Amino acid sequence: MEYKHVVQYYETDKMGITHHSNYVRWMEESRVDFLAKIGWPFERLEQQGFASPVTRLECKFVRPSTFADVITIYTQVKEFDGVILTFEYKMEKPDGTVVFVGESKHCFVNLEGKPIRADRACPEFCEELRKQKEVK
Amino acid sequence: MEYKHVVQYYETDKMGITHHSNYVRWMEESRVDFLAKIGWPFERLEQQGFASPVTRLECKFVRPSTFADVITIYTQVKEFDGVILTFEYKMEKPDGTVVFVGESKHCFVNLEGKPIRADRACPEFCEELRKQKEVK
Amino acid sequence: MEYKHVVQYYETDKMGITHHSNYVRWMEESRVDFLAKIGWPFERLEQQGFASPVTRLECKFVRPSTFADVITIYTQVKEFDGVILTFEYKMEKPDGTVVFVGESKHCFVNLEGKPIRADRACPEFCEELRKQKEVK
Amino acid sequence: MEYKHVVQYYETDKMGITHHSNYVRWMEESRVDFLAKIGWPFERLEQQGFASPVTRLECKFVRPSTFADVITIYTQVKEFDGVILTFEYKMEKPDGTVVFVGESKHCFVNLEGKPIRADRACPEFCEELRKQKEVK
Repeated sequence: MEYKHVVQYYETDKMGITHHSNYVRWMEESRVDFLAKIGWPFERLEQQGFASPVTRLECKFVRPSTFADVITIYTQVKEFDGVILTFEYKMEKPDGTVVFVGESKHCFVNLEGKPIRADRACPEFCEELRKQKEVK
Repeated sequence: MEYKHVVQYYETDKMGITHHSNYVRWMEESRVDFLAKIGWPFERLEQQGFASPVTRLECKFVRPSTFADVITIYTQVKEFDGVILTFEYKMEKPDGTVVFVGESKHCFVNLEGKPIRADRACPEFCEELRKQKEVK
Repeated sequence: MEYKHVVQYYETDKMGITHHSNYVRWMEESRVDFLAKIGWPFERLEQQGFASPVTRLECKFVRPSTFADVITIYTQVKEFDGVILTFEYKMEKPDGTVVFVGESKHCFVNLEGKPIRADRACPEFCEELRKQKEVK
Repeated sequence: MEYKHVVQYYETDKMGITHHSNYVRWMEESRVDFLAKIGWPFERLEQQGFASPVTRLECKFVRPSTFADVITIYTQVKEFDGVILTFEYKMEKPDGTVVFVGESKHCFVNLEGKPIRADRACPEFCEELRKQKEVK
């Protein structure tokens, strides 16, 4: 799935480039967009009584980006075993230069923050994630 | 009341100076510290069933600051009429250069977000705010 | 001029709404977009040897917004006297609820940060700003 | 080396906890503090003509933290081979609960962003890093 983010001035730092912490925010931004596009916006997850917080991140900052760059973010389901969900991300500049690659891992919790078995608590969502893994 | 904030690298922008949006965050940071110091940390306000969100801001960016600058923030109650609470802020560099002056206005709401009369809902807090206004 | 911003999860706070500091960032976001649309992206200003930093802000937080809200930001030139440039902003939710109104004031500096007379240093840009003020 | 960060209100999100992207900022905050304490503040690195940008991050979000928590961040040099510098981080709440563990990797570049051999360009700094690795 493809998502675009334009680098904002407030996302740059005194080296003149995007501050690295923003890529973590863009991972979330594109993941939120991904889930909405496959029919599972955050609201629907919440309505079904669960959330899927980040437990791990791996980030590789390949090349810098800067103010006004249009970044294309490719997001997909890398793995899903019914307990841990892994997304992978690639971010590119318009000329195809890869600026970032990364992964995020997510668990499943109910709205009190207790871990739940995704397969039991939200089988429909799990099915969709498995389908996405196939098409990647 | 005095509070110190060290400018972080992630708070700078590509002009090489502190991005102006961060001063708004430091206003909150020093206000939170002010309220804790006068015995009314946010938790206590919440326990008493209310919050005091920002309704207005006025900011004057006087001089730039940058990475690693130690900013001293002076915060005080400027006005309090039982409905609207106004804080004022002055931020300085170690050499006394004023970098920022500003004001924030706050209303009072219950935890469902409905406006309340502070004087009735939290007389003790109001008394303390009036005392602070005197000593300013 | 109209610009859209979708509220991100990382822009919310523990009250469940958009943290107020983000509106200041969206003012910049929409101003950058405005300048690009009238033919004066930041890069062009820089190429001509000047910048236009924020010197003052006035913010009125009218109603809350929250995660996934699509905010429409209306930005226009309110005043321009050849020295100080004032933008005004109105932000609305899709149902027309106004969530924010504000103003930003800007001076003109060269790339070393020294104040310059805009009328002399960049007459073309000034002419465009005056035209925008008319059409507002 | 030990560094303290108090969780700010603007660092929380609508789940009521610290937004995960902030831990990445705190890694930088504590690393900057670490380098200053061992006699190599960023300014000194810059004066010697180089910088040490982040190339990789690994983050493990162990437990949530929230507004007003005092986080103690332990930072140390994990590895340094003369080309790649690895820091490791552990973040704890006052009761000893570990909330975060992570690593950052850094390369060395000159002020034009070209990769340099640290051992040749800044032998004194490299010596100090090796000493820190020993004492960890």
